[in-house]
Amino acid sequence: MTNTQLTLVQIDNYGPWTVTPEPRREMDLQTLQSRLFADIAQFVGYRGGYAFFTRFDNMVAVTNGLDIDDHELLQESMGNRYPVTVSLGIGADPNPAVALEQATEGLQRAGSAQDGDRREVLAGDPITDDSDDVSIAHFDVNDATGKYTDQLNEFDSFIQIEQGYAALMRHLREEQGGLSFFVGGDNIIAVAPEMSTDAYQDAIDHVEEAVGVDLKVGVGRGASAHEAGMAAKHALEECRHRGTAVEWGDVTADGA
Amino acid sequence: MTNTQLTLVQIDNYGPWTVTPEPRREMDLQTLQSRLFADIAQFVGYRGGYAFFTRFDNMVAVTNGLDIDDHELLQESMGNRYPVTVSLGIGADPNPAVALEQATEGLQRAGSAQDGDRREVLAGDPITDDSDDVSIAHFDVNDATGKYTDQLNEFDSFIQIEQGYAALMRHLREEQGGLSFFVGGDNIIAVAPEMSTDAYQDAIDHVEEAVGVDLKVGVGRGASAHEAGMAAKHALEECRHRGTAVEWGDVTADGA
Amino acid sequence: MTNTQLTLVQIDNYGPWTVTPEPRREMDLQTLQSRLFADIAQFVGYRGGYAFFTRFDNMVAVTNGLDIDDHELLQESMGNRYPVTVSLGIGADPNPAVALEQATEGLQRAGSAQDGDRREVLAGDPITDDSDDVSIAHFDVNDATGKYTDQLNEFDSFIQIEQGYAALMRHLREEQGGLSFFVGGDNIIAVAPEMSTDAYQDAIDHVEEAVGVDLKVGVGRGASAHEAGMAAKHALEECRHRGTAVEWGDVTADGA
Amino acid sequence: MTNTQLTLVQIDNYGPWTVTPEPRREMDLQTLQSRLFADIAQFVGYRGGYAFFTRFDNMVAVTNGLDIDDHELLQESMGNRYPVTVSLGIGADPNPAVALEQATEGLQRAGSAQDGDRREVLAGDPITDDSDDVSIAHFDVNDATGKYTDQLNEFDSFIQIEQGYAALMRHLREEQGGLSFFVGGDNIIAVAPEMSTDAYQDAIDHVEEAVGVDLKVGVGRGASAHEAGMAAKHALEECRHRGTAVEWGDVTADGA
Repeated sequence: MTNTQLTLVQIDNYGPWTVTPEPRREMDLQTLQSRLFADIAQFVGYRGGYAFFTRFDNMVAVTNGLDIDDHELLQESMGNRYPVTVSLGIGADPNPAVALEQATEGLQRAGSAQDGDRREVLAGDPITDDSDDVSIAHFDVNDATGKYTDQLNEFDSFIQIEQGYAALMRHLREEQGGLSFFVGGDNIIAVAPEMSTDAYQDAIDHVEEAVGVDLKVGVGRGASAHEAGMAAKHALEECRHRGTAVEWGDVTADGA
Repeated sequence: MTNTQLTLVQIDNYGPWTVTPEPRREMDLQTLQSRLFADIAQFVGYRGGYAFFTRFDNMVAVTNGLDIDDHELLQESMGNRYPVTVSLGIGADPNPAVALEQATEGLQRAGSAQDGDRREVLAGDPITDDSDDVSIAHFDVNDATGKYTDQLNEFDSFIQIEQGYAALMRHLREEQGGLSFFVGGDNIIAVAPEMSTDAYQDAIDHVEEAVGVDLKVGVGRGASAHEAGMAAKHALEECRHRGTAVEWGDVTADGA
Repeated sequence: MTNTQLTLVQIDNYGPWTVTPEPRREMDLQTLQSRLFADIAQFVGYRGGYAFFTRFDNMVAVTNGLDIDDHELLQESMGNRYPVTVSLGIGADPNPAVALEQATEGLQRAGSAQDGDRREVLAGDPITDDSDDVSIAHFDVNDATGKYTDQLNEFDSFIQIEQGYAALMRHLREEQGGLSFFVGGDNIIAVAPEMSTDAYQDAIDHVEEAVGVDLKVGVGRGASAHEAGMAAKHALEECRHRGTAVEWGDVTADGA
Repeated sequence: MTNTQLTLVQIDNYGPWTVTPEPRREMDLQTLQSRLFADIAQFVGYRGGYAFFTRFDNMVAVTNGLDIDDHELLQESMGNRYPVTVSLGIGADPNPAVALEQATEGLQRAGSAQDGDRREVLAGDPITDDSDDVSIAHFDVNDATGKYTDQLNEFDSFIQIEQGYAALMRHLREEQGGLSFFVGGDNIIAVAPEMSTDAYQDAIDHVEEAVGVDLKVGVGRGASAHEAGMAAKHALEECRHRGTAVEWGDVTADGA
């Protein structure tokens, strides 16, 4: 059964820290944030998970397969190597939005994100049944290079991609409880509940009608986000070769 | 006079590379992208510039004060340390959108972003008149922690911030030629042409009316993005203290 | 029984790469090397191992607990994120020098370190019996800050530490088959076979007589380098408190 | 005239921090140290300098061309992005050992390296006369791959390299006031005073007689360590082609 475990990674009291005692250099903050995210992506990724930068001070990770010791290790290691600490909230549910609701509530109950005394909270319980699986949908924009990158100035290309993302993120959230994350280029990865081909086609149609951005999607399932995501990537390659809009991946296609 | 120099940093042939010979692990790609951006942020930031991650495979930097040698050094150093190379296009104009148009065209003329033979292009000419300055506007969301982060699940908070960003980015682009970039948390930094207080108030009103997200902004000018941006950050702190929506920074407030 | 699994990490054809087509910027090479090492230290460290930078183009890691899949994942991830690739040789033996001999031979049999066609070799077999353990000895210099750092110029301090290290590394290698690595500051970590307190005292006496550098050591055993190393660190704190030269750690002191 | 400006970078109170409140994970410390060094290498390197990891908690950089603002910026940026801070001491002299003596004394006068209250010291004055130059000698071991890496186990190869380095570092320090740093592989870079070809040949002969390790060296001079070092690298390539032991570089060979 699809049962997604999500971890909310929240930098403790980050906003106030960025302006104390004076506003810090913006490029130092950008460097700090993106490297901290990269370290979390590596940690989680090596255990089969996926991490998304989201707002950078709050990051969302798919952590099926990571237990409480893994979470403690991540928290300890960040605290050892960065000038900031992180709190972690864990939730699990067939519906990703509900899982994130749980993960978030665990931290909210412990105090405000800007409470200087609330540090290194670890809330929530990882899944213990490893028969569960995860569903990942990998979208990209049809011919984004030809239509946008090689034609428009970069900001206008970005506006197109961004509009497509904004429309998709709201649609999947509201209609399905799926959580979509922009991952660079013209790529969007969604952590999805169980959805039919028709439901994916509806999402693509919605985005096309709403903002004129033309998507395709590969969908995969697997015991981990990595397995599901690799199946989704291969399925997306299939869309490319066949000119189709929705393809389902075979987890054994991973080869890993 | 405000005259913004922008550099488009484009990873050469990145899309095809990510799936050759097989799709690569997503978390390795996320790590690669965010570290490459961090290195550009450090390089540009130490010279007074600002870099924005935009789509990660295409990044936009404000590079007033960086000459052609600086650009060559950046390009060489990335090529020495990453499995991918970068092309750089430079443009300058009082209107940031026009500057980026120039920067982008320099690369487009040299070939497609996905042309395997087009590598390490360096196109365009840096400004030589150092009397020019840059205008930076630093927006954030009023009480984002209290209204969103501590109340909603993280994805629903993110949707709010994202909607505010989407509305602002289009408004400033279309009305003013300003380029807005989400920089994490509830922060948006815009590279702006000369704009009045009323024009900033209009932008804030527009976002409030369109999507219900309540912004404030500090604006600064300076010889570099860093100077202008520090003045903007101090001005934003003023908004916070005074409860105002638009404040102008004094470049000498930087102290740097 | 003490049975150390060692992995030799060798950057493929690195020397020639650093001067092709022209010598590359030294600081780019230094950055590349130290970040690549840092990534290996994180990867191995999160699985309970220890990695040492050694010569940077050849690194040695204690990898008890890492199986062949872990090694493949490390190799794949480095290849995805760096402009160079790595070969890995694995060996295991109660005597660390013998284990490294095996690990090295696996790569040597596959070709020269500077053979341009020999890439991403993975040779050798990890231990399958997880009842084995590892012995780690953590040395430091008595009052290095007071005697050297705060008194001499930094290079002369470094010469003292370096001489102590050179004497220790040869003694432990020749007398015991132990492998000692300088890990920064005044710290040396040795991967050791089973040794008595007297044997450790002999090593300390030898260094004192040979070069006048005064060491102490904490020794720990555990299922992984991390467990053994944490016990060794706690034992070294005991030396500090009690003024003793050799202390044995209790693996349960780790608490982890 | 050769006039070397050296900066001692010292992590403030690092030893105590690594064991407070409990000893921290060794691989986190290794990661922190090597990334911090990498950032310093990038910062200094982009300004034409060279940085050496030395003991990691104390690093030595050749900083001709870096003024006091550059040093302040480095210090601020490290403090913004790491859980530790750095103090910087600057010295300049035709004799590198004397320059480092000055640099070190500036920090020692301000307090102990392990004084918890001594943070972010910036001591000493950069050179203002930019007609000065720097001398860099780049040594490597003749056929290290064929004689060691492809023949011995990695630790025994390392012992050979390490012995060669230990002999050279002492000889150049004592006879000339030159400071030699191991930079990975079989490479040693020395910051040298003005020395004759005979003096370099003597150094090579001394190492061969003392420990049987066979070196060659390329020497370069330039306004910055980078320029001098690139000339030295090209000269070392000349040694390789001609089978000579000492070659002098032409700074214009850099092409940069």
